Amino acid sequence: MQLKADERMDYLTADGSMRIIQSPTVFSYSIDAILLADFARIPLKRGKILDLCTGNGVIPLLLSNRSQATITGVELQSRLYDMAERSVAMNQKEEQIGLIHGDLKEMPARFGNDKFDTVTVNPPYFQTEHTAHHNKNEYLTIARHEVYCSLEDVIKACSKLVKSGGKLAMVHRPNRLVEILTLLKMYKLEPKRMQLVYPREGKEANILLIEAIRDGNPDLHILSPLYTFDQQGQYTKELHRIIYGK
Amino acid sequence: MQLKADERMDYLTADGSMRIIQSPTVFSYSIDAILLADFARIPLKRGKILDLCTGNGVIPLLLSNRSQATITGVELQSRLYDMAERSVAMNQKEEQIGLIHGDLKEMPARFGNDKFDTVTVNPPYFQTEHTAHHNKNEYLTIARHEVYCSLEDVIKACSKLVKSGGKLAMVHRPNRLVEILTLLKMYKLEPKRMQLVYPREGKEANILLIEAIRDGNPDLHILSPLYTFDQQGQYTKELHRIIYGK
Repeated sequence: MQLKADERMDYLTADGSMRIIQSPTVFSYSIDAILLADFARIPLKRGKILDLCTGNGVIPLLLSNRSQATITGVELQSRLYDMAERSVAMNQKEEQIGLIHGDLKEMPARFGNDKFDTVTVNPPYFQTEHTAHHNKNEYLTIARHEVYCSLEDVIKACSKLVKSGGKLAMVHRPNRLVEILTLLKMYKLEPKRMQLVYPREGKEANILLIEAIRDGNPDLHILSPLYTFDQQGQYTKELHRIIYGK
Repeated sequence: MQLKADERMDYLTADGSMRIIQSPTVFSYSIDAILLADFARIPLKRGKILDLCTGNGVIPLLLSNRSQATITGVELQSRLYDMAERSVAMNQKEEQIGLIHGDLKEMPARFGNDKFDTVTVNPPYFQTEHTAHHNKNEYLTIARHEVYCSLEDVIKACSKLVKSGGKLAMVHRPNRLVEILTLLKMYKLEPKRMQLVYPREGKEANILLIEAIRDGNPDLHILSPLYTFDQQGQYTKELHRIIYGK
């Protein structure tokens, strides 16, 4: 497996069974992706999963560890798509995971409506009006800022692609909650499960996990919160289980 | 002070300095009211506070303990209004707390728009279509079910009564979150602070505290969660502080 420029090979799972190509200047996954992969309820035996804004393929790879369903990842940036392709090949997951280099907004036209059992997405978090905050690195800017897709674009595409009764699982920032819930409702994705992640006790939430069901009935459950670190600055037991699987 | 029927006199504060008239068949305050009174940011020296759905006056009484602002409580049910009046008199708070026997929907016409610095409200939680769940006791049914005011009625009235830049603080159930946020936005009350209360670790949230600012800028903060009970079934330290003030 050939690494390019400043790429490195990281272990994706604690048992060393999966690895992933990362790069500090192109894309490295965050804890958010790991939390989303753990939070999402997915078909385990058969069915179709779609991951939008897939980056280096971290979420499809993690999901393939606990499901035999077909997984499709969509990534807009060719450089990241290329990293994802090589990571999938390196883990010999080509039969289960298919990657598409393309724009999520074009996926409903490509796949048709009502096609996936679960759609997962870790979209760009930051609105683009604050151009001063843009990362000078274009790869990271596109991954983190709504340059090529707004939150509405993401939710609209998810709403079309997921089956009626199917699930959307998204990770985002808590300060976008009002907008997220409003858009989900607007696109017939009924919010059903929400979990907040706090960096440690006594701090404000900094990660939002949310699941919606296409055409579901209103009935939101707010799950027990997660804390990333304990008072000693170590991962809490729950985070340790999610990250290291034990 | 004359008690009626099955009324009793409870201590409202741990130091015994305040008391309140309660009745198991008419109205007894819940932990939700205490949490709301603690959560609400109110003017401390001067200004005007309004409490809608005031019940037996528990929130005005609690707020009067930490503020010198004028407090008005509005209650629809004459039997509860009468309890509140006697509790205010008993605590010698008549100068600070004024009570109105009336319908919250009529308060904007009575006071005019844009009048209060903070509005607090602990509204009925349950939608009225589930008539089977109605309490056979009419006092409790009206206090708990949206018989005389819907969530939209409450938020609409708050939106008119609060000043631009003023605050609405509400306690409700987490499963109504989507509707609450949608209605707040619709009535120009921008959600700014939210706190979830969990009965204990590992359980879903059962109480939602939310503050919105009239004409505020979008910027929601989700505060560190509260837990009611610890693993031994005792109030947590934080709840103990909120309930007993120490």
